[in-house]
Amino acid sequence: MTTKVLIIGVGGVGSIAAYTLQNNGAQVSVVARSAYDVLKDTGFTIESCDYGTINFKPDHVYKSAKEAHDDQGKFDYIVITTKNIPDVSPVEKMIEDVYDKDTSIVLLENGVGIERSMFKAYPDSTVISGVTMISSTLYGSTVKHVGKDTVSFGPFINPNINKDKQIESAKNFTKLYYNEHNQAKYDENVKYIRWRKLVYNAAINTTCAITNVDAGRLEIFGGMDSIVRPAMKEVLAIAKSDGVELPEDIIDFMIYSDDGEYYPPSMLIDIRKGQYTEYKTILGTALDIAKENGVPAPVLTILCNLLEVIQLRTMEEKGRIDLPERRPLVSEKYKLEYKY
Amino acid sequence: MTTKVLIIGVGGVGSIAAYTLQNNGAQVSVVARSAYDVLKDTGFTIESCDYGTINFKPDHVYKSAKEAHDDQGKFDYIVITTKNIPDVSPVEKMIEDVYDKDTSIVLLENGVGIERSMFKAYPDSTVISGVTMISSTLYGSTVKHVGKDTVSFGPFINPNINKDKQIESAKNFTKLYYNEHNQAKYDENVKYIRWRKLVYNAAINTTCAITNVDAGRLEIFGGMDSIVRPAMKEVLAIAKSDGVELPEDIIDFMIYSDDGEYYPPSMLIDIRKGQYTEYKTILGTALDIAKENGVPAPVLTILCNLLEVIQLRTMEEKGRIDLPERRPLVSEKYKLEYKY
Repeated sequence: MTTKVLIIGVGGVGSIAAYTLQNNGAQVSVVARSAYDVLKDTGFTIESCDYGTINFKPDHVYKSAKEAHDDQGKFDYIVITTKNIPDVSPVEKMIEDVYDKDTSIVLLENGVGIERSMFKAYPDSTVISGVTMISSTLYGSTVKHVGKDTVSFGPFINPNINKDKQIESAKNFTKLYYNEHNQAKYDENVKYIRWRKLVYNAAINTTCAITNVDAGRLEIFGGMDSIVRPAMKEVLAIAKSDGVELPEDIIDFMIYSDDGEYYPPSMLIDIRKGQYTEYKTILGTALDIAKENGVPAPVLTILCNLLEVIQLRTMEEKGRIDLPERRPLVSEKYKLEYKY
Repeated sequence: MTTKVLIIGVGGVGSIAAYTLQNNGAQVSVVARSAYDVLKDTGFTIESCDYGTINFKPDHVYKSAKEAHDDQGKFDYIVITTKNIPDVSPVEKMIEDVYDKDTSIVLLENGVGIERSMFKAYPDSTVISGVTMISSTLYGSTVKHVGKDTVSFGPFINPNINKDKQIESAKNFTKLYYNEHNQAKYDENVKYIRWRKLVYNAAINTTCAITNVDAGRLEIFGGMDSIVRPAMKEVLAIAKSDGVELPEDIIDFMIYSDDGEYYPPSMLIDIRKGQYTEYKTILGTALDIAKENGVPAPVLTILCNLLEVIQLRTMEEKGRIDLPERRPLVSEKYKLEYKY
């Protein structure tokens, strides 16, 4: 029987995932917003280092998860590839109209602890981790895929349900995704992989976003030594408290990983575009874990608090927040309220 | 004999100082760059809450301190009111062509420890502290002065020279500056006044600059509690180690001092204009003192390090820094060099 996959979010990562799965034989549906018309009519052009230049139209295109569910009922897999911004659009809410306990959720997203809100919303859910090192960006209706699709899948183990079934589901998804062109692999050590990537993201990605410089300039301007190194040491300590021992030399590895180019990390690009950042899943959840385990993290805490202020500034810019005309007096006990 | 004063920097603060001193009977010379022609020809229009609307032309206008010295020899006072940006244009360098040991230097500028570089460059100098709470801004050739000129003068005591003479010089300058319209006063407790003002500047001014929100939004968006309060506690601890005991309730006082308006502090305005910030004298010197006295200041340290990266970004934007075309590899051992 054909495996039915619903993909939510068709940007640079989601488009390659959708094409890969459909090309490998799955029946692929996507939920698209701004790209709905073009995906329905002509499809995307994908210029891919793995697949060459191709035209891609998904089997089905929907405007919402509800529409997908109304048309097809339940799916085998739901793959979420949108930015993970729980303070603006929580992923668990995105799938509430299509969730089923027999559907496995694949979170092809950044951050640690991102399974927590999912398990809370759906205590019987099977949630699969996807960590990608792909370099792929959507421009209009063209996907430029320049860095090989190197992706690891594995189960976030949900203690409420049968473990073997979760492992089996993650393995099956990896098989469905793997082909001779990509570097997809199954790796049960989900925590390790996610913490490892967080060493870069929690320190370099965040600091670049706050200072508005790329990773190369951050190094030249002294920020790698003055901010990133102490921040990375904190990530290693929190990871350790979460059972993941990363080697000390990962710090140098990550700092020099973009050598040779002035690389602007994703959060910096978000800031430059006036978009929300994934600071909650990249820093907030890690700091929740630090707090639970009593690990001090003063540098990451300040970076997170600064990014929170910046996120609220973006919310105001996007019209999600209305402020009083004059700054309230302390005696007025004003409290900011905003809705998703 | 008429007192000869040279004013360096004729922005919002410098213009009012120049007008006040000249109006009070001093002979006033100014060093101006972009405003040179207009000051020489027609003068500034000053719309002042203290003095009404007036036209102001200084007695003498020069293009450089050297020109002032060539024309007039030594001055009784040199008043420096420029932004204090030691990493870009150190104040001690500004006066090297006109400095004389009989001239008192008035630093009408932000920050703590700003006398240090002066004493280092001129070991026999008399340096007077000026801390102002004025609200005055220069727009083109018009000065809008909306908040009363409330300024304290007092001696930074130089241990190398006679103390009484330093006190006398500061008292005389205060007399020269005071009139029935302003609130100029002599206050020997220079350190206390400067540390007190730094509670606001080191925490609120810096955080607003980094997050690009004004003080009102910073409060509403949670940054006063998450960043500013811990930062202010560190300022209090450093001040204490420097012999200045500030009351705890200064924290609430400063946080709510701009209540009723969305006030953009000076460093935020600098950032929005793409200008350098005074982060070194507002944070760097305070952190030097913290280090000397063994006071931990993790929050202020990160804020300072972020502002340092941002300052270098501004230097690149202004063409003071040339970067290699590609990000250097670690093996190349590249080191940034830039000149004043």
